[in-house]
Amino acid sequence: MAETMPNWLKKRAELSPDRVALIFEEHAYTYQQVFEKAKWYAGKLEALGLKKGGTAAVLFSNQAEAVFILYALQMAGIRVVILNHRLTAEELVWQLDDSQATVLVYETRFNGKVSEVPANARKISTKDLLETNGITPFILDEYELNEVTSIMYTSGTTGNPKGVMQTYGNHWWSTNASALNLGLHVHDKWLCTVPIFHISGYSILMRGQIYGMPIVLHSSFDEKKVLEDIGRYDITILSVVSTMLRRIIDRMGENKLPDSFRCMLLGGGPATLPLLQACLEKEIPVFQTYGMTETSSQVVTLSPEYSMERLGSAGKALFPNQIQIVNDAGEIVPPGAEGEIIVKGPNVTAGYLNRPEETADKIRDSWLYTGDIGYIDDQGFLYVLDRRSDLIISGGENIYPAEIEGVLQSHPGVADAGVIGMSDEQWGQMPVAFIVKKESGLRGEDLFAFCERKLAKYKVPKKVYFVDRLPRNAAKKLLRRTLREWLEAERDESEH
Amino acid sequence: MAETMPNWLKKRAELSPDRVALIFEEHAYTYQQVFEKAKWYAGKLEALGLKKGGTAAVLFSNQAEAVFILYALQMAGIRVVILNHRLTAEELVWQLDDSQATVLVYETRFNGKVSEVPANARKISTKDLLETNGITPFILDEYELNEVTSIMYTSGTTGNPKGVMQTYGNHWWSTNASALNLGLHVHDKWLCTVPIFHISGYSILMRGQIYGMPIVLHSSFDEKKVLEDIGRYDITILSVVSTMLRRIIDRMGENKLPDSFRCMLLGGGPATLPLLQACLEKEIPVFQTYGMTETSSQVVTLSPEYSMERLGSAGKALFPNQIQIVNDAGEIVPPGAEGEIIVKGPNVTAGYLNRPEETADKIRDSWLYTGDIGYIDDQGFLYVLDRRSDLIISGGENIYPAEIEGVLQSHPGVADAGVIGMSDEQWGQMPVAFIVKKESGLRGEDLFAFCERKLAKYKVPKKVYFVDRLPRNAAKKLLRRTLREWLEAERDESEH
Repeated sequence: MAETMPNWLKKRAELSPDRVALIFEEHAYTYQQVFEKAKWYAGKLEALGLKKGGTAAVLFSNQAEAVFILYALQMAGIRVVILNHRLTAEELVWQLDDSQATVLVYETRFNGKVSEVPANARKISTKDLLETNGITPFILDEYELNEVTSIMYTSGTTGNPKGVMQTYGNHWWSTNASALNLGLHVHDKWLCTVPIFHISGYSILMRGQIYGMPIVLHSSFDEKKVLEDIGRYDITILSVVSTMLRRIIDRMGENKLPDSFRCMLLGGGPATLPLLQACLEKEIPVFQTYGMTETSSQVVTLSPEYSMERLGSAGKALFPNQIQIVNDAGEIVPPGAEGEIIVKGPNVTAGYLNRPEETADKIRDSWLYTGDIGYIDDQGFLYVLDRRSDLIISGGENIYPAEIEGVLQSHPGVADAGVIGMSDEQWGQMPVAFIVKKESGLRGEDLFAFCERKLAKYKVPKKVYFVDRLPRNAAKKLLRRTLREWLEAERDESEH
Repeated sequence: MAETMPNWLKKRAELSPDRVALIFEEHAYTYQQVFEKAKWYAGKLEALGLKKGGTAAVLFSNQAEAVFILYALQMAGIRVVILNHRLTAEELVWQLDDSQATVLVYETRFNGKVSEVPANARKISTKDLLETNGITPFILDEYELNEVTSIMYTSGTTGNPKGVMQTYGNHWWSTNASALNLGLHVHDKWLCTVPIFHISGYSILMRGQIYGMPIVLHSSFDEKKVLEDIGRYDITILSVVSTMLRRIIDRMGENKLPDSFRCMLLGGGPATLPLLQACLEKEIPVFQTYGMTETSSQVVTLSPEYSMERLGSAGKALFPNQIQIVNDAGEIVPPGAEGEIIVKGPNVTAGYLNRPEETADKIRDSWLYTGDIGYIDDQGFLYVLDRRSDLIISGGENIYPAEIEGVLQSHPGVADAGVIGMSDEQWGQMPVAFIVKKESGLRGEDLFAFCERKLAKYKVPKKVYFVDRLPRNAAKKLLRRTLREWLEAERDESEH
């Protein structure tokens, strides 16, 4: 029998109708109000033909209306494909077609981008939605935990973005695992400046409903506004990536955060020693965490008391989770030995949309093979050495070299292409490309222009190096480690 | 696919080995130590032939060793039938035989009682256990949430005690539901003075493991020690029934509880106005709650801010739970209308051991028919009017009239018997009996002596009224309401 539980937002509106649910641009909405707003949108979506079991894609930035519509879709039992608005029209089309979403609901400000999207999906702007007469909507009384509610695309080593299916149960378990780890205080308020189209932001929305906790939502990250609002709203928890944390610390100057602030949840790659030392000096309680779209948010977290002692560690697996390190033969290796990180738990994705083979390859016997490399020390602390071997993390966005290489290789002037990350002060990393020419006249600018049409801006290589051939092994596998050595030599030279 | 999660105690020992898990008689045990103790006992139990899938009964009072052995059985995947040590030998035999437990593990101090138990189960005292050479035990790495871990007997309107099967999942969900309602603070400490053989105490043990929260365990309730330990250990949460709360308040005198104390969880029947007023005056944050063995603890809870405004209410259904009121035809009635309380949620029992018919009768379409009578107001607050029509709650113990009537009717001198509760200053309620004689020579003392052999002391009627006939309807159903009127008339008379 599938486990069910009451519709989260409806239940929350019943339990604590007058508690604040959302604060956006100085406007506060109670749970009752958010529920009414979401129901109101559900009535409009249903009037437009969207029904339980259907699939809608959304293209939203961090706005109150976006939250209401996301809740509306969840309550109506409509699967939502949450698109990243930084993607190009071409990338969006790929995800729309792959997900077979029948409708694309988009924020009116993305009109321009959406007009370039020649997808099969019917396009409905938030303005259209406001002008639609709603009906009394069907909303679910109960959520079945094994039903899919959200789909987020991630790329991977193969280059093709895949839709990660997240069930109601995935979010439920992740939400509870987080509470068991971080605690759940009566006066908690979570500040969300990370995108709600990422699991980092979307998971905060899930926690808000289930905890009955106010969320303060920012349309984008602005360290000045973050510091103001932490004081103004007595924020207790903030999710950040290193770049954001660095900027917050620089902005703080000699100030401290208020005592009520209790958790700086730091994701998107390990923190550097200077950053952690700055946090220690400023008494910022940093919880480093490791997670991914496939685990519906955090799966391993390090408590602040260990942040210096276990420098570079992502922590221990959350209460419902298990982690192991396996070698190429799939055998569990002893503590301290490197290998692929595999994770298990009820927050692990139900699989990749319409990709049974890739699902079977990545999830075996309930263990998710992350592709990330790391080791576990003898006390059970995880150290992540290399995210998915090749993953480039730039300002919290995941960039998969294979995807960029695919685009570059499709250019008629390119014979071969390899992409790696280059370390960057501000963004952590940036992609750079190594190119073997087919046409001698090919210039870097041609490739930049080409990529800008095909790829979100943050994925466009910042530099192009032309080389005679790429380092590939006998099986023709690209040796990115060699590319990294080349890059280092190149940078050393340019610095002399 | 059945949901699994890591072995709770093992996981907790991995996550926070040095955190205090249990304080008993001034001795503190860390999670690592409790895990080692439990493993040590598991090795002894296995050496004695107990294995995964087996069933053991335990007869324990609130002792540290009892906690270790309960954890050992849970980790080993051995179902545990948790016996109430206040039961008579005859009652114990019934539960042992019914549960088909192959082993009875008992505290050595219950030697006398156990020697009277002619059960098929092998009897092992805690002293025997200490003298047994243990082996390296098998312990579960993972718990399957739909597996049964504990069985507790409750009676009911039919009189025969039934074994309530509680799964790992029931306890997991109950634990999380409680956290979502009460919050989960980093410095929480739960004082357990209620019996660990009841769900009220056993559920605290489950929370301790899952939250990583210290439990202070008292061997029995003593208001003086409670008040001392609240101050001494910075207790934040205490589970009580009305009788206990009354005694605590009397003992407090002019004092207040420390600010760190944040939750007085009051179960076992609604509180009276004077009691709640006393709490208000003393600023005791009372959370009234409604729950039962079949829901693995709380299912409805009232927050302190509503305790006066919604006087007599048990509150709203916890986050994963739903409640409804139905009439005799099984139809849901409108707000304010009385009927049977039905509850739903993943903490509802998997059913009654070896009683598929009674299970099917009480759990229909995932709804548990509690037999309790109540109504829900237009704001969703539940009011319990009558616990299982006939349930007598005496000092937190549930007493089922039908069970006592069965015993009385088995006396050769009794033609008919009816039992109801009489209100009592100290215990809330006490059972009294109405008897139709078969032999004219029958005296009250004969019945008291007879009952004392057959029934736990708290179940023995405190008074016997001899009558010519009992009020029964056409279907011969006993009309307890009429008995209650008789009792009132009787008491009024005696007061004049």
